[in-house]
Amino acid sequence: MNKLNTPSQFKTPEVTTGPLTGSRKVYMTPDGHPELKVPLREIMLGDKDEATFHVYDTSGPYTQQDTTLNLEKGLPAIRSPWIKARAIEQYAGRKIRPEDNGNVSDKALARDFPNKQPPLRVKGAQPITQLEFARAGIITNEMIYVAHRENLGRQAAPQCAAKALEDGESFGAAIPEHITPEFVRSEIARGRAVLPANINHPELEPMIIGRNFLVKVNANIGNSAVTSSVEEEVEKMVWAIRWGADTVMDLSTGRNIHNTREWILRNSPVPIGTVPIYQALEKVDGDPVKLTWELYRDTLIEQCEQGVDYFTIHAGVRLRYIHLTADRVTGIVSRGGSIMAKWCLAHHKESFLYDRFEEICDIMRQYDVSFSLGDGLRPGSIADANDAAQFAELETLGELTKIAWAKGCQVIIEGPGHVPMHKIKINMDKQLEVCGEAPFYTLGPLTTDIAPGYDHITSGIGAAMIGWFGTSMLCYVTPKEHLGLPNRDDVKTGVITYKIAAHAADLAKGHPAAQLRDDALSRARFDFRWDDQFNLSLDPDTARSMHDETLPKEAHKVAHFCSMCGPKFCSMKISQDVRDYAATLNDKEQGMAKMSEKFREMGSEVYVDARKAKDANKTLG
Amino acid sequence: MNKLNTPSQFKTPEVTTGPLTGSRKVYMTPDGHPELKVPLREIMLGDKDEATFHVYDTSGPYTQQDTTLNLEKGLPAIRSPWIKARAIEQYAGRKIRPEDNGNVSDKALARDFPNKQPPLRVKGAQPITQLEFARAGIITNEMIYVAHRENLGRQAAPQCAAKALEDGESFGAAIPEHITPEFVRSEIARGRAVLPANINHPELEPMIIGRNFLVKVNANIGNSAVTSSVEEEVEKMVWAIRWGADTVMDLSTGRNIHNTREWILRNSPVPIGTVPIYQALEKVDGDPVKLTWELYRDTLIEQCEQGVDYFTIHAGVRLRYIHLTADRVTGIVSRGGSIMAKWCLAHHKESFLYDRFEEICDIMRQYDVSFSLGDGLRPGSIADANDAAQFAELETLGELTKIAWAKGCQVIIEGPGHVPMHKIKINMDKQLEVCGEAPFYTLGPLTTDIAPGYDHITSGIGAAMIGWFGTSMLCYVTPKEHLGLPNRDDVKTGVITYKIAAHAADLAKGHPAAQLRDDALSRARFDFRWDDQFNLSLDPDTARSMHDETLPKEAHKVAHFCSMCGPKFCSMKISQDVRDYAATLNDKEQGMAKMSEKFREMGSEVYVDARKAKDANKTLG
Repeated sequence: MNKLNTPSQFKTPEVTTGPLTGSRKVYMTPDGHPELKVPLREIMLGDKDEATFHVYDTSGPYTQQDTTLNLEKGLPAIRSPWIKARAIEQYAGRKIRPEDNGNVSDKALARDFPNKQPPLRVKGAQPITQLEFARAGIITNEMIYVAHRENLGRQAAPQCAAKALEDGESFGAAIPEHITPEFVRSEIARGRAVLPANINHPELEPMIIGRNFLVKVNANIGNSAVTSSVEEEVEKMVWAIRWGADTVMDLSTGRNIHNTREWILRNSPVPIGTVPIYQALEKVDGDPVKLTWELYRDTLIEQCEQGVDYFTIHAGVRLRYIHLTADRVTGIVSRGGSIMAKWCLAHHKESFLYDRFEEICDIMRQYDVSFSLGDGLRPGSIADANDAAQFAELETLGELTKIAWAKGCQVIIEGPGHVPMHKIKINMDKQLEVCGEAPFYTLGPLTTDIAPGYDHITSGIGAAMIGWFGTSMLCYVTPKEHLGLPNRDDVKTGVITYKIAAHAADLAKGHPAAQLRDDALSRARFDFRWDDQFNLSLDPDTARSMHDETLPKEAHKVAHFCSMCGPKFCSMKISQDVRDYAATLNDKEQGMAKMSEKFREMGSEVYVDARKAKDANKTLG
Repeated sequence: MNKLNTPSQFKTPEVTTGPLTGSRKVYMTPDGHPELKVPLREIMLGDKDEATFHVYDTSGPYTQQDTTLNLEKGLPAIRSPWIKARAIEQYAGRKIRPEDNGNVSDKALARDFPNKQPPLRVKGAQPITQLEFARAGIITNEMIYVAHRENLGRQAAPQCAAKALEDGESFGAAIPEHITPEFVRSEIARGRAVLPANINHPELEPMIIGRNFLVKVNANIGNSAVTSSVEEEVEKMVWAIRWGADTVMDLSTGRNIHNTREWILRNSPVPIGTVPIYQALEKVDGDPVKLTWELYRDTLIEQCEQGVDYFTIHAGVRLRYIHLTADRVTGIVSRGGSIMAKWCLAHHKESFLYDRFEEICDIMRQYDVSFSLGDGLRPGSIADANDAAQFAELETLGELTKIAWAKGCQVIIEGPGHVPMHKIKINMDKQLEVCGEAPFYTLGPLTTDIAPGYDHITSGIGAAMIGWFGTSMLCYVTPKEHLGLPNRDDVKTGVITYKIAAHAADLAKGHPAAQLRDDALSRARFDFRWDDQFNLSLDPDTARSMHDETLPKEAHKVAHFCSMCGPKFCSMKISQDVRDYAATLNDKEQGMAKMSEKFREMGSEVYVDARKAKDANKTLG
C-alpha cells in the first residue's frame, strides 16, 4: 500500500493506493465491446494446478499496480462518450453559494475541487434514465458492463451454476445461470433492479442492485458538525471501496458539505448516495421548522448537478403517521425522518416531500438520480420493531414507488433498523409485496440492542439473513454505531463484516458462482497453502498478521501444521490415508481375492504408511 | 479491574478481578433455601425511575467488590456439603505419572496445584448423576440453584413473560413462563437438559444446558505444543467467564496438561470440558496408532478424578464411515475425529470409543461426568456441509445417546462446523429427531469459508440462527480460528460475539425475560443516559471508550447529543413534540370545539414549543 499525494499549495487528500496483497488489478472486455473495460481483481495462487482466481472488484483505479492518479483532476470519465451520445445538454448550472458550505469563512472553507465541469441534463422528454432506456428496449453500455461484471466466475464453471441454483433457497428470486445484457435490461425495466448512474458522474464504474444479482454493500461516510475533514472523508471513501463497498453514502453534516462532496464524487468509481435534507437543514442553521420546499428543491438541483447517484428521500413520513410513534421506546431515530416529523408538526401540514413528490421525480429524472425511499419511521429498538408506524410508512413507500416509476425514475426502498430475528422475514415479504419488487436496501437489521461497540455484529447477523431472504443491498453498520463517527478502522471492519453477510446470503440463495471462492480457499487451507489462504480471504492483511502472531517465520508459510495443534499431529494430514483407504474399498469391490493377497503382503501396516500402500497398489495394479 | 496475585516462591497465576464497570456482584437466596447463594450482577442506573438491573452472571467470585481469593487454595467448595450428603466415598485415586504432564523435566514442569483433595466417587449403584436423581424424582440443590438462576427477570415482569412467549417463535421448544425446580428436574429426567457437575468439582456454580433454558456459550482455551503457559490459561478462563462464558473447554495439548487443568478446575466456577483423547495422544508421543483402550481408560479416570465436568468423546467416528470423507474438500477437520480415524485405519478395527462405549459410561457415571458426543466428521468447509459422513455419524450419536441414558449418564451432542445458512435448520431438525431431543452444542456454524481473521463473525451469524432454531449451547469461535491460538483479546471478542448470538436467539425464541435488557438499554439511549447505556451493554468498557474517542469530556456523558449529528439537531429530541401531538389527537377525539379554541390561542407555534403546548394544555385541562 502506498499513499498517493499530489503536491499542491493547498492540502490535497491523501488516499491509499496499490494492489491488495497477493492480487493484481485486471480488466476484461465483453465480446464485441472493445471499448468497455470491466475491472476485476486477480488473485495469484501458489499451486500450479489452481487457476488464478478472479473476484468482483469495486476498488477503482486506486488498486492498479502503477497508478498515476491525480486527485485534483479526478478519475478518468469513462462514461463520458456514452453519455454524450445521449439526448443531453450542457448548461451553466446553479451557482455555488456560501450557504452550500455552511457559510464558513475563507480559512475554514475547504478548497473547491479545481477541475469542475459544467453540468449536463436531459433535453426534454427523451429517454435518459436507465429505466427509460430499458423500457424502450435499449441496452445501454452500462447494462452490458454490469452483465459482464456480474457473470464473473460463471463461465469458468457452468456446471456449478445449475447445481448451485438447485441447491440454494432463494425465496422466489429468479437468478439465472448466466447474466445477459438483455436480462439486466429486463430487470431494470420491471423495476426489480436499479443501476444508479447520474449522468454527471461519468467517473462511475457501473454496478447493479437487485435481488437477482450479487448482494451489494453500502458504506456510510461523512463528517459532522463535531468532527472530521474533507481529507479524511475522501480517504474513507477510497478505503471503503478498497475492501469491497459497492456504493458509498456521504452523510456529511456541518460545514463544507458541498466541497467535500465534490472531491468525493470526482474521485469515486462507485455510486455516491446522499440525504439531501441534511444539507438543506444546514442551510437553515439546523432548525427544521425553517425548511421550505424551495430551499429543498434548490439543494436537490445542487446535488443533481454535482453527480450524486442516489438520494435518500423520506417522503413516506406523513403527518398522519407521526402520532403512531408516540408510545415507542425510541420514538423516531432516523435523522431525516425526525427532521420531517418536526417540520410537519410545526406547520401542521403534510410533508412537502410527499406533497411535491412528482416535482421531485421530474428533477431527478433529468439527471438519472435514483430514489432511495427512506424509512424515516424505522424502529430504533427491538421493542419498536414491525410496529404500526413502520408498516404504515412502508405502504406509502409502495405508493410512491409507483409514481416514481411512472415518471421514469429508478427506485430502491430503505428498510430497518432494529429487528429481532423472528421478525426479519416479514419485513422482506411485505416490502416485496407492497413495493412491487423494487430492490430493498436495509440497515442491518440489528438483532439486539444490548451490544453498543459491537453493532457491526448484532446487525451483521440480521443483514446476512435479510440478504438471504431477498434484500439487494446491505447498508453497513460499524462498531461505532450509536457511539460516534466511524474512523478508518471502523469503516474497514464494517465493510468486511458486511461483505461476509452479503456473501453468506449469496451462498444461501444459490448464487451460481459464489461458492467457487469458498472452495478455492478451503482447498488452499487443506493443502496448507497458507499464502493462498490469506490472499483468497476478504482481508489478506489481517489473516496473515494473525497467523504470524504465533508462527512468524517465512518457513511457516509452507509448514504443514499450524499453532493450534503443533507439528506433531495434524488432523488434516490423515486425508491421504483416508483416500487410500477409500481406494482400497473400491478395489475390494473389484475382487476380494486380489485384496486379500495385498493384505497378506503388507501385514498390519496396510493403512499406516500412505506411500507404502501406494507402492503396493502399483505392484498389484 | 485489578490483578490478583498471591505471593509465592513459584509463579502463581495472575487473574483479573473486580466488578465490571457500573456493576456490583450480589447473591440471591431462593425461598426456603437460605443455604443457596445464587450469583447475579446488579447494574446501577442513573435514573431514579429505573430499577437497578440484574443480569445472569457467570463470572464467579472474581467480580466481587473486595475479593480475598487465594488462587493457591482454589475457590470455595460451595457444593461440598451437598455432595457429601450423597452416596459417595473418598479414595486414594490414581497416582499422577510423569506422562500426565508430557514427561517434562523439573524446570519445564508447571508446579502442581498445592491444595489437592483425594477424589470422590459413587458407592455402587445408588443415584449419583443429576439424571439419576431426576429420574428418581429427587430435586437436587443444583436443580433449585439453576431454577432460581434461570428465572432472573421473570418475576419482575410476569405480564411480559406471557407476551414474549406468544410473540416469539421457538420451533417447538417448551419454554415455561416461570422455571420451577420441578421443571428443571423433569427436563433433566427426559434428557432434554444437562446439568454438568462432576462431584469432584465442588467449586462449581451450577448451570443448565437445554433448549428450554437460556442459550449458553462455551469458550475454548488451552495451550498447545507451540505456545502459551499455565498462567495464561488460568487468566483466559477467568477472563472468558468475566465476559459471560457459561462453560470453558480446556483443549490443551503439549506439555503440562495435567497440572494446567488442575489449576483451572480448582479456580473455575463454571463447568470445565475437555477432550480426553488429546491428553491420551500426548502420552503416546502424538502417534494415534499407538493409542490403546487401556491408556484412554486411564486418562478418563485421571480426568474424572480431577473434576472435569464434561468430556467430548468422538465415539461416532466408526470405521465404516471413514471412506465417506474421501472425496471431501477438507476431509476430516476435527482433531479428535481424525485421531480416531487414523487409529481405525491403522488397525483396521472399529473405534475403541465405540466398542467400549458402555464401559466409558460406567466410568463417567461414577463421577457424574456428562457426555458431549463429538462430531468428529463435521464439515470443515461449505462444500462438505450436510454430507453423508456427517449425517451417518449423527445417527450413531443418537444410538449412543440412548445407551448413555440407559447407563444414567447425561448427554449433549456436538454439531457443525461450516454450513451455509440455508443448510443450518436441517442440522437442528435432524439432531432433535435422531438424538431424542438431547441438547445440541454447536460450533458456529460458519456460514462462509472466505473470511479467516473474522470467523467469530462468519460463525456468529450461524450461531445466532441455530440458537434460535434450538441449539442449547454455542461453542464460540474467535477471530484467530484457522490461524492461531486465541490470546486474551481474542477470547473476549469471541465471548462477546457469542453472547450476542445467544441473546439474539433468546429474543427470537420468545424467552420471557430476554427483552428486558434491550428495553432498559434502549430507554437509556433515548434518554441520553450515556453511562447507563454503556453499563447495560455487554461490554461497558468498549462502549465507553468508543464514545470517548470523539466526545471525551465527562460533561458529554450527560449531553443530549452525540458526535453523529452534533449538538444542533438531534433526531431523538423531537420525541416530546410527538408525544404532545399524540396527546392533542386524543384530546381531539374528546371534543373538536375545545381543540379549535386551543389552536386559536396558540397560533402557528402550536407544535413547536413543547413546554408552551403543555402549559396551554394545562390551561384547557
